Amino acid sequence: MTTTNQAAELSHLNQHGEANMVDVTEKAMTSRTATAQGFISMNNETFELITTGKHKKGDVFAVARIAGIQAAKKCSDLIPLCHPLMLSKVQVDFTTDSENKQVKVTSLCRLTGQTGVEMEALTAVSVACLTLFDMCKAADPAMEIHGIKVLTKEGGKSGQWQASS
Amino acid sequence: MTTTNQAAELSHLNQHGEANMVDVTEKAMTSRTATAQGFISMNNETFELITTGKHKKGDVFAVARIAGIQAAKKCSDLIPLCHPLMLSKVQVDFTTDSENKQVKVTSLCRLTGQTGVEMEALTAVSVACLTLFDMCKAADPAMEIHGIKVLTKEGGKSGQWQASS
Amino acid sequence: MTTTNQAAELSHLNQHGEANMVDVTEKAMTSRTATAQGFISMNNETFELITTGKHKKGDVFAVARIAGIQAAKKCSDLIPLCHPLMLSKVQVDFTTDSENKQVKVTSLCRLTGQTGVEMEALTAVSVACLTLFDMCKAADPAMEIHGIKVLTKEGGKSGQWQASS
Amino acid sequence: MTTTNQAAELSHLNQHGEANMVDVTEKAMTSRTATAQGFISMNNETFELITTGKHKKGDVFAVARIAGIQAAKKCSDLIPLCHPLMLSKVQVDFTTDSENKQVKVTSLCRLTGQTGVEMEALTAVSVACLTLFDMCKAADPAMEIHGIKVLTKEGGKSGQWQASS
Amino acid sequence: MTTTNQAAELSHLNQHGEANMVDVTEKAMTSRTATAQGFISMNNETFELITTGKHKKGDVFAVARIAGIQAAKKCSDLIPLCHPLMLSKVQVDFTTDSENKQVKVTSLCRLTGQTGVEMEALTAVSVACLTLFDMCKAADPAMEIHGIKVLTKEGGKSGQWQASS
Amino acid sequence: MTTTNQAAELSHLNQHGEANMVDVTEKAMTSRTATAQGFISMNNETFELITTGKHKKGDVFAVARIAGIQAAKKCSDLIPLCHPLMLSKVQVDFTTDSENKQVKVTSLCRLTGQTGVEMEALTAVSVACLTLFDMCKAADPAMEIHGIKVLTKEGGKSGQWQASS
Repeated sequence: MTTTNQAAELSHLNQHGEANMVDVTEKAMTSRTATAQGFISMNNETFELITTGKHKKGDVFAVARIAGIQAAKKCSDLIPLCHPLMLSKVQVDFTTDSENKQVKVTSLCRLTGQTGVEMEALTAVSVACLTLFDMCKAADPAMEIHGIKVLTKEGGKSGQWQASS
Repeated sequence: MTTTNQAAELSHLNQHGEANMVDVTEKAMTSRTATAQGFISMNNETFELITTGKHKKGDVFAVARIAGIQAAKKCSDLIPLCHPLMLSKVQVDFTTDSENKQVKVTSLCRLTGQTGVEMEALTAVSVACLTLFDMCKAADPAMEIHGIKVLTKEGGKSGQWQASS
Repeated sequence: MTTTNQAAELSHLNQHGEANMVDVTEKAMTSRTATAQGFISMNNETFELITTGKHKKGDVFAVARIAGIQAAKKCSDLIPLCHPLMLSKVQVDFTTDSENKQVKVTSLCRLTGQTGVEMEALTAVSVACLTLFDMCKAADPAMEIHGIKVLTKEGGKSGQWQASS
Repeated sequence: MTTTNQAAELSHLNQHGEANMVDVTEKAMTSRTATAQGFISMNNETFELITTGKHKKGDVFAVARIAGIQAAKKCSDLIPLCHPLMLSKVQVDFTTDSENKQVKVTSLCRLTGQTGVEMEALTAVSVACLTLFDMCKAADPAMEIHGIKVLTKEGGKSGQWQASS
Repeated sequence: MTTTNQAAELSHLNQHGEANMVDVTEKAMTSRTATAQGFISMNNETFELITTGKHKKGDVFAVARIAGIQAAKKCSDLIPLCHPLMLSKVQVDFTTDSENKQVKVTSLCRLTGQTGVEMEALTAVSVACLTLFDMCKAADPAMEIHGIKVLTKEGGKSGQWQASS
Repeated sequence: MTTTNQAAELSHLNQHGEANMVDVTEKAMTSRTATAQGFISMNNETFELITTGKHKKGDVFAVARIAGIQAAKKCSDLIPLCHPLMLSKVQVDFTTDSENKQVKVTSLCRLTGQTGVEMEALTAVSVACLTLFDMCKAADPAMEIHGIKVLTKEGGKSGQWQASS
């Protein structure tokens, strides 16, 4: 029946619609990499505060980078059906977009393991954006976080995947 | 000097541009509430899987709700300069938008304390969205999380704040 | 209607049957205490190992005590709808019952706050029992943990409560 | 001497009776599975609330399942001498026993690793029972958690183990 | 008897020598502040790497500052008999001492609460030192962390305390 | 250029001076062991309290040992650029030095993995010392923690390393 087939596609539910952690015991250990991105847009004044002048060397991006890296390591504690993983690399980078008054956050996660790391990459991006929000909220409480998505995935049975642009 | 003034607006940096946890020791204990929202959009097939048919009573939203509530409680562990807080209420709700094939996540956080709870509300929304992503990613790896922002804040010295619509 | 009334009794579900963290913002701050107990029973040989001879001064109970105290502090991280609390006292004690070859674990939790602490007391007892299990499992993998319940609650609107014996 | 031999059986104490994390560095990586069970019994009215009527589709079991799965992943943080593990599967299930007014919780944990996963399975069961307690305590504060034990263990040097019934 | 009196001075042991979390339920809520310091000394080459040249504006101190702030918030999770606290201010600062090729780390913790915050201040200093060690260990694995102590305590029944210099 | 070369030696900064988690994906899995030590010195009266008389069998060292073991497992959560690891052995020991009124803490960490475990060993020592401080601070608030350093490292590409004495 159609509905049953569709349900099978939601690997995180069993046939009764109950939460289901996928069993990866038998999956091969392969090198896996995922990249993700997200954006935080703010008003002009706040964007200037963090990108120009005396304080552009300040800790704003350093704090957000550390928060993102730490969050990737906490992913299985935050997202109930994620497996605990031993990330061998987490990277978080920031690009300022002065035209749109936004900061682009990108992340890369990598390991040799049995399951993909896109949730870790998305978590790194999300928490880095939240940290930027926290650091700037006194100047602009109306900021918006958007465009959080996976860019690429490599490794595992499904091989290479790339977001359409 | 202008730059110094601007820096002062970023309460989370000190005058040297270093990370600074705001001292709230002397702030009054008042009842504070914040609400936030976010969205996750997906392809048509995945949207149908979680909103219709036999499994619409499944655990998808229950898991995401719990993840969001738990994440609000972990906010000060995730965001480096946030103060530890004792939330007295966290609520996470979901609305399905069949026209745009997206789920809207809203959160409410409340406490009687010395500092606002908008970061907790934003964290709840973000992690609930990430959990929905995790549960649906086998069906649609190209989902996007967007529109994460504060809706309202109440309490504290700055009083009522509402996002412009 | 009956079903609705019944549902109202489950304070942790809202009217739609969804997980609901009770809002304690308006509840008074009062001194609250809860005590709980649990048991772990084991074979005779294992019971002797931890209660007699050269090693009765060993770290077995010290490790389980610390694990129980630490677990009480983690309660709101373990149990999704529990509020974060600031416990002002946690105590975990052990009594050996040589007749039944079991260890009785009791706990006491206390704070001045807006919500009861029986879940913290039960969590302390449960994790202390699990730790005893872990330390003795090489000698007896068939141990059983049982009799976990609240003994007394004091404070708050509902006042004194005591388990019937 | 007898006492010394006995002490050797408590692998989690060294020869001085001090807490000792077993060194598993040299143990083989094998597939290991453990199952465990536990029960929570309640009064008739509360049992009805969670198993019948309009709310039997409510989030009660979904929340407890997620709490149990998350707790299995936190096992080495809760139980001091447990090794950190990378679980590849955690499953938590519920069976309602209307004759005895109790819920039976079963768990399964699995990984390919150097040490068994029965503590993870027991932790999942314990925290799922505690979460059921939390969600029902307004209706029945006198519930009891009991019968927590390992059902089966597979893998590793000691091979298959099964609780006697 | 003397020994008993002495034991009473170790507030973290009860009369049986067992771990004891001090009951602070009845203690007054007062503003409390503690400051602490610690040092990490390294070889000349490593000291130059982090204090001079192109990279003196690098993230070394920013990462250690964040680690120290976050660790202060985790104090009750790290130190078994510490009470959970709601810090209202944590500050971590670094001074470079080119004569002795060492970095001095100082911390300040503050809250309005029932117990002192010197353990939080010491934890912030310790983890900031460990983070500096981690970031520099490829250049000098023989670094040493030393001189960790409380500088001042204010507030509470015991009033002002200051380390003798 | 010299500065660039020097920066390269700080593996935890990239070429822009930004925090950088080293990519260990391609490193071989080898057995790795590290040992570390630290000291806490106290006044004569406090030293006597924890080492002689009726309470020398008390829980002081048991609590500190457990805290040290647990902290080693939390290392990657405490130190931002540390990789998550699966320690297969953690050991924490105490030696009392009555001449200098100090306690020496030593630790050993081991695993089969892609990166060294000296940070875990140092974290175990540091948190064990902090726990001793906490347990004795009512008797002597002027204690000092010192001499924290790596003693030996084994395994990995760099082979055996030993601190000069």
